Amino acid sequence: MRAVIMDAPGEVRIADREDPKIIDPTDAVIRITAACICGSDLWPYRGVEEVDHTLMGHEYVGIVEEIGSAVQTVKPGDFVVGSFVISCGVCEICRSGYPSKCIHAEFVHAGIGTQAEKARIPYADGTLVATPGQPDEDLIPSLLAASDVLGTGWFAADAAEAGPGKTVAVVGDGAVGLMGVLAAKQMGAERIIAMSRHPERQALAREFGATDIVEERGEEGVARIKELTGGLGAHSVIEAVGTQESFMQAIHSARGGGHVGFVGVAHEGVNLPMGEVFFAEVHLHGGPAPVRRYLPDLIQRIWKREINPGKVFDLTLPLEHAAEGYAAMDERRATKVLLSL
Amino acid sequence: MRAVIMDAPGEVRIADREDPKIIDPTDAVIRITAACICGSDLWPYRGVEEVDHTLMGHEYVGIVEEIGSAVQTVKPGDFVVGSFVISCGVCEICRSGYPSKCIHAEFVHAGIGTQAEKARIPYADGTLVATPGQPDEDLIPSLLAASDVLGTGWFAADAAEAGPGKTVAVVGDGAVGLMGVLAAKQMGAERIIAMSRHPERQALAREFGATDIVEERGEEGVARIKELTGGLGAHSVIEAVGTQESFMQAIHSARGGGHVGFVGVAHEGVNLPMGEVFFAEVHLHGGPAPVRRYLPDLIQRIWKREINPGKVFDLTLPLEHAAEGYAAMDERRATKVLLSL
Repeated sequence: MRAVIMDAPGEVRIADREDPKIIDPTDAVIRITAACICGSDLWPYRGVEEVDHTLMGHEYVGIVEEIGSAVQTVKPGDFVVGSFVISCGVCEICRSGYPSKCIHAEFVHAGIGTQAEKARIPYADGTLVATPGQPDEDLIPSLLAASDVLGTGWFAADAAEAGPGKTVAVVGDGAVGLMGVLAAKQMGAERIIAMSRHPERQALAREFGATDIVEERGEEGVARIKELTGGLGAHSVIEAVGTQESFMQAIHSARGGGHVGFVGVAHEGVNLPMGEVFFAEVHLHGGPAPVRRYLPDLIQRIWKREINPGKVFDLTLPLEHAAEGYAAMDERRATKVLLSL
Repeated sequence: MRAVIMDAPGEVRIADREDPKIIDPTDAVIRITAACICGSDLWPYRGVEEVDHTLMGHEYVGIVEEIGSAVQTVKPGDFVVGSFVISCGVCEICRSGYPSKCIHAEFVHAGIGTQAEKARIPYADGTLVATPGQPDEDLIPSLLAASDVLGTGWFAADAAEAGPGKTVAVVGDGAVGLMGVLAAKQMGAERIIAMSRHPERQALAREFGATDIVEERGEEGVARIKELTGGLGAHSVIEAVGTQESFMQAIHSARGGGHVGFVGVAHEGVNLPMGEVFFAEVHLHGGPAPVRRYLPDLIQRIWKREINPGKVFDLTLPLEHAAEGYAAMDERRATKVLLSL
């Protein structure tokens, strides 16, 4: 099969790899219909994370080709959406709503890779969710978004306890931040403040439900959030960047007793000064999103065309042109790239 | 009036100070019946925090002597318990359950001081709660505990979401950690693991409801917690120390999706490595306890003799001997000192 390989930082190519096969009875092999390039794929691309001839990718939708003997909820021919974390679905942690911390958890980007024609998905029942039927072509980007960016933004809004009567501030205008705006809107938030200085992303944020835009960053941004919230700060803050500055901006933007949901993968060297965080007295929750928990609901909302998260993709390329997709995201010419197969 | 003054680190004496008077119509002046020495009072005592001829103390029970014209819920002669944070009780933050972050919040230890015969309490309605009548003498230590250590342990257990079916681990066997054990028990926790290597504190922890004791610390302690919880970690962890080691011990002791309630005042220089905390995927909440939120309930439980948190005091001294109390706590000869008046 054809697959996207990153040989070293900045070096992306398409190569042939052996087709994946069923190994364990809980496996499924799927033919990928669409995959994408994630902000986190830029880390190895930029040399921030190690990479060595790695098959890339962890977001995916596709059609089941073959299942192991123990798989019960998906069958060959089903169109499926999968989480970027493999999860068994039956352990105590999965059942508590944290498939991302499953006792068998495995990151799809580390050893599986979905920027390819096919992928072997372990624990298919606990990781994949079949759509109600074969999707219309125009639903595919939205279903693909559910695999990571939508699921992650949804988790952030949930962790931030977005809901009716709440003011939600969103730090980060990348794909995940924009999905956080969409999620907060769906959860009934009264006011959604997107922090962004890019006109196109501001427009998309407004389309997804943002009621206010704050262009200032850092402590100036915090001051604007305070101004907009009677001096108190937001009830809920979504952190979707992962830097020291963005974490502190998020914490300072929340009111006492408020909730910060963080999903920007924290960079090495990001440290929360607890002497200060202690007195901020906010709730903090985040990490790799338990996307599988939300997939059945998200698929329904997409299927009924209640939400259109696929709009977050602003560049679509065939898999063979993946290298151009990486470059476009690296240079911020694209927010989110869809690779079609 | 007589009052405890800390002139400089390690230098505690009793001196005469002018009696406090009503200044604002929302003030009350109370005659202190009992006060205590807090673990946090040791910070300036040890020179970790600045101190300069400061009137000390922030935990107190007493009898109302005089009230301002706007005070409605307490009257002269009432026996009252107060929070260690002044709060108005009516702002949006107070009403949301966070009097500790009241827009008028003021720490009692910074400028008021209750290790004294009298104190002026601003925002009396929002800060003080009257008991149902004059308490029996033996209830006074428990009511005093509610003013800070019990209220703080209660908040920690609440922030850690202790409850039926939950396993709660408690990091720290000081007064607050022990109160966290008591609170977790009252909240219906199934299993309460106290981390302690002091035989007397272990005994008290068991009396307050601990079902297990872990003597190991740091990563060895974490390994023991994992052993006791089927490899998963505790559902709820109370952090009641405030050091880098204790924070990491608490976070590592919690399962994915679990809750860490932290109330140990974080020392300067304590930094949470977010690259690691991100993947732990726990809930973190803590800070100065919103004691006033819990006081009506805690007073009822004490009044009905359902709980006996006053047992945490292991040394009682007259106010005049406060210096000896500070020395005893500094040298760990006492867990918690009650100053009687």
